[in-house]
Amino acid sequence: MTEPASPPLRLLIDTDPGVDDAIALMMALRHPRARVEALTVVAGNVGMEHTVRNARYVLELCDAGDVPVYAGAGGALLVEHRRAVDAHGDDGLGNLGLRPRSPDATPGHAVDALIARITAAPGQLTLVTLGPLTNIALALRREPAIGGMLRRVVMMGGAANAPGNVTPAAEFNVWADPEAARIVLRAGLPLTMVGIEIARANLLPAEKIAAIGALGTERARVAARLLTYSLRVAVRRGMPGASCPDGTAMAVALDPATVTDAGQYHVDVETHGELTTGETVVDRRGVHGRLATTTVVHAIHRPRFVAMIEDAVRA
Amino acid sequence: MTEPASPPLRLLIDTDPGVDDAIALMMALRHPRARVEALTVVAGNVGMEHTVRNARYVLELCDAGDVPVYAGAGGALLVEHRRAVDAHGDDGLGNLGLRPRSPDATPGHAVDALIARITAAPGQLTLVTLGPLTNIALALRREPAIGGMLRRVVMMGGAANAPGNVTPAAEFNVWADPEAARIVLRAGLPLTMVGIEIARANLLPAEKIAAIGALGTERARVAARLLTYSLRVAVRRGMPGASCPDGTAMAVALDPATVTDAGQYHVDVETHGELTTGETVVDRRGVHGRLATTTVVHAIHRPRFVAMIEDAVRA
Amino acid sequence: MTEPASPPLRLLIDTDPGVDDAIALMMALRHPRARVEALTVVAGNVGMEHTVRNARYVLELCDAGDVPVYAGAGGALLVEHRRAVDAHGDDGLGNLGLRPRSPDATPGHAVDALIARITAAPGQLTLVTLGPLTNIALALRREPAIGGMLRRVVMMGGAANAPGNVTPAAEFNVWADPEAARIVLRAGLPLTMVGIEIARANLLPAEKIAAIGALGTERARVAARLLTYSLRVAVRRGMPGASCPDGTAMAVALDPATVTDAGQYHVDVETHGELTTGETVVDRRGVHGRLATTTVVHAIHRPRFVAMIEDAVRA
Amino acid sequence: MTEPASPPLRLLIDTDPGVDDAIALMMALRHPRARVEALTVVAGNVGMEHTVRNARYVLELCDAGDVPVYAGAGGALLVEHRRAVDAHGDDGLGNLGLRPRSPDATPGHAVDALIARITAAPGQLTLVTLGPLTNIALALRREPAIGGMLRRVVMMGGAANAPGNVTPAAEFNVWADPEAARIVLRAGLPLTMVGIEIARANLLPAEKIAAIGALGTERARVAARLLTYSLRVAVRRGMPGASCPDGTAMAVALDPATVTDAGQYHVDVETHGELTTGETVVDRRGVHGRLATTTVVHAIHRPRFVAMIEDAVRA
Repeated sequence: MTEPASPPLRLLIDTDPGVDDAIALMMALRHPRARVEALTVVAGNVGMEHTVRNARYVLELCDAGDVPVYAGAGGALLVEHRRAVDAHGDDGLGNLGLRPRSPDATPGHAVDALIARITAAPGQLTLVTLGPLTNIALALRREPAIGGMLRRVVMMGGAANAPGNVTPAAEFNVWADPEAARIVLRAGLPLTMVGIEIARANLLPAEKIAAIGALGTERARVAARLLTYSLRVAVRRGMPGASCPDGTAMAVALDPATVTDAGQYHVDVETHGELTTGETVVDRRGVHGRLATTTVVHAIHRPRFVAMIEDAVRA
Repeated sequence: MTEPASPPLRLLIDTDPGVDDAIALMMALRHPRARVEALTVVAGNVGMEHTVRNARYVLELCDAGDVPVYAGAGGALLVEHRRAVDAHGDDGLGNLGLRPRSPDATPGHAVDALIARITAAPGQLTLVTLGPLTNIALALRREPAIGGMLRRVVMMGGAANAPGNVTPAAEFNVWADPEAARIVLRAGLPLTMVGIEIARANLLPAEKIAAIGALGTERARVAARLLTYSLRVAVRRGMPGASCPDGTAMAVALDPATVTDAGQYHVDVETHGELTTGETVVDRRGVHGRLATTTVVHAIHRPRFVAMIEDAVRA
Repeated sequence: MTEPASPPLRLLIDTDPGVDDAIALMMALRHPRARVEALTVVAGNVGMEHTVRNARYVLELCDAGDVPVYAGAGGALLVEHRRAVDAHGDDGLGNLGLRPRSPDATPGHAVDALIARITAAPGQLTLVTLGPLTNIALALRREPAIGGMLRRVVMMGGAANAPGNVTPAAEFNVWADPEAARIVLRAGLPLTMVGIEIARANLLPAEKIAAIGALGTERARVAARLLTYSLRVAVRRGMPGASCPDGTAMAVALDPATVTDAGQYHVDVETHGELTTGETVVDRRGVHGRLATTTVVHAIHRPRFVAMIEDAVRA
Repeated sequence: MTEPASPPLRLLIDTDPGVDDAIALMMALRHPRARVEALTVVAGNVGMEHTVRNARYVLELCDAGDVPVYAGAGGALLVEHRRAVDAHGDDGLGNLGLRPRSPDATPGHAVDALIARITAAPGQLTLVTLGPLTNIALALRREPAIGGMLRRVVMMGGAANAPGNVTPAAEFNVWADPEAARIVLRAGLPLTMVGIEIARANLLPAEKIAAIGALGTERARVAARLLTYSLRVAVRRGMPGASCPDGTAMAVALDPATVTDAGQYHVDVETHGELTTGETVVDRRGVHGRLATTTVVHAIHRPRFVAMIEDAVRA
């Protein structure tokens, strides 16, 4: 007698690839239980001209060229758009010459696609956000009802009582569009936040990257080259391994059992600070007395996370 | 030989009726040269449930029931929505029992309608904004290209080196969604700003309202009742006549010759102030050296403005 | 029988000379009713090394070398100190080579001197502030009781619903130390504010400056040279006459009858704005409902103001 | 042959007693190497009427009634003063009826006393701050030179990448006067910061408090009663022991070897945040590239800390 198959995990992924986005996308596209229904793309790590193309490249690499890629917001709601080119290379994928056969976006806007797909499958879809939250915020403001229709939202973004990576207080995805992040965090979504500190606690050292590269597939080789690029960036910043924040968030989205420690808090985003704009303010001690609606991941199971990357690139 | 007819003035009107919105809509709907192509409605003076219905009522009153009314944003981008019920009554039209036969919105969202209509007629349409700028900001962020396709934008909003009406520094429409106003003012639109001080300099005293009411039509009677409501509000605030800000902006939109004094300046919106959030900061002296792209109206021709109201309610 | 002499006007003057400070000091030092008891000096238009020396120079020019000059704060409470060298010259007095015989400050700190003198003569002293309000704020925080002991305070600073001179919203003295200005405006002082718009409405054209210079004294020649420097600055900024803000405030302090229009309002300073920090927010319409404790001068009697300058330089 | 006696540790203590201030003061007053030269008192945990009296009480309890107690600022530089009565009782010492024989302050203002004593002994004095930093900021602004004359400054205040105790982001002493804290942190002092997280990691459980009380002296009994009060507050907040932040800072000041982990960073205070005002922003990763002048204590040797309390109350 066979175990009844669990229903597939239906995913929408909002992304700004980005090296670690690429790894996270591979994890989702190759996961046995997951079904990636669409990518929506946002400017972030690099500009929209690159993020669409890079998303396409990863889809083709994973034999998923039929997944639609909708282009969305080319800049933040209010702040001037700032890239993270130093961490991802000018082309967003480590300047390795990785190019898709079909570079174009699917017709239609990311915001419209998010609204249409979520509305069409209420309670069915998990949204994973790997970039600035501009598309999601625009969709929530255009059609607030979608906030109550998502099964789950997993966000790579912010830092929970931990240093940021672009300012002492702020992580890139939130800092790049703090007002959008505030809209998302205040929308009452079933939201899980995976902050930058989770990646810092789960760095991928050179030998692990080598092991991934040795798995023999084209995907394995590309993943190893991308992570080697990240490793070089990390070493320059004094870290002993490649950081893969989007991968950690995707692991949490794909398998909740990856989480070994988490808490439920009120989380908001500072948008008016002189030093702290883009900081995710986590009310760890319930000082505010406001509703604790956000699950903040404090730790993940490292071997599971690494295994998910390896599984993604295996034949 | 007859003079060649000037082409019609094709209007999109974003509105949150509102007593003075109603007057302004009558002015546009009955103007010989104007063609109102659609109304987009936003929450503002009162909530969306009232603004749609009130827009419909005015259309029916002006035998323009076929003009579409698209419902848009029910609240601001970021700030909590705050009404102006004390100035417009709980129902937005002075609690006079004015109700349309067909109260419902046209299918489709205001933001989508704005994008579709502007894109379909590049360089043809004049946009008049009579409420908070949430719909316009969302449309500009969803489809930035429309910014370059508008023939002209006339905004009732802000105060140019003049006191505000909701705080010492801020006028209601800008204060109700300061971030949206900032997006609009920074979008490089061909924008004319008509601030609250123009209405203050062109109050409608009791005898003028009586004269309007005496013009004998149903529209005349309704306009007089609405303005009488505004007059009572004004008197409580120490002003000797009814204030009709949206009417002044519509006069400027319908006939540029209404303007007797104006200047071109860099204008931006304060969004971070403790006392000044929602203030329109007009760089009158060019201190900044930034591009002066906004035309700020300093004075209008009062008889022309009044005549436009009278013409709107005449048989 | 002779009229009983009115009691002298006992003045403390806080100043950062500065061309227009110099004119204002002459007005006070030569006024028949005024008795200047001490100058306290603050960095502002130029740094402390110049403001003390310039204060001394003006005292000597007016045969008042015995008036003490106390050096105070060399920078603002919180913001980085920014000079107004373009309006006053590198040395603060138009680079005309004006130097005192005795350049040094009187021993003792300005803040201590303010506290000691005000405490010693409760209800007797009028304080005139011509620069950033750092000294006054420090004195008020060090000894709050002095707030209730001043007969009157006249402040040159701010702009009442008028454009600023250093940003679109802010006047120099308030902008240079906005937190100090806030402390002063919130201290409940018997305060009269003379904003930058008063100087703009009372510019001194070339022929008036020539007439002053023709009055034949050394003071007249110096005043004319200083005002000629200001005139050149003004012309570069598109104004048809020299601006003398500190002179207008001193005229108001010396003779209340100089004021032809004024109002009593709640006034506060924006300290958190992105565009408006240093703006004096005047609640003209009582929107706030807060206590209206500040008298804001709206207009002065121009001939009286000019006559006071002329009288100051006459033999 | 005897070891040469090390020179005494000459202390100025700025304090707002406060239960944990009282413990810290006992630690200093009874430490064999320390010489408490003066207390300066500030409003904070409770108002000035209580803090002076409480300081006097602790001095008398420690047979140090001759140490001068100078009263200083009764409120913050800019923000409205907010007490911490719930943590310290209405009288600041747990409502235990502890009253000094001589309740009055020493003549002279705390700010003047700080300036005079530091100036008179350049390079000799260690300043320990146990309350809001208003007095220190006023002294630094009144006489900037003292910044370079202090041997060392140890501050109980802030939170280093840790939750606050009054808001999710801010600790009480910094939050109660954020602008003063900014002035102090930007003054280039030889500053060691002991944040609230150090107290959280070194709570004093009931059995430890009982052991202290059993040491037999009047001081021991008072210390135990005070700590028992703190323990009840802590238990209500879900903590298993009394928190004694000022004691941890005093331990660091009295014996640098108490510190087991620390780092040198750029630290600044957020003063403009909507959610984060009063947060100490520690640039742990050197993102800013600004000068790292503040030593932040990450951990202390718990037994040493406890022993210092015990030694303070022993016969």
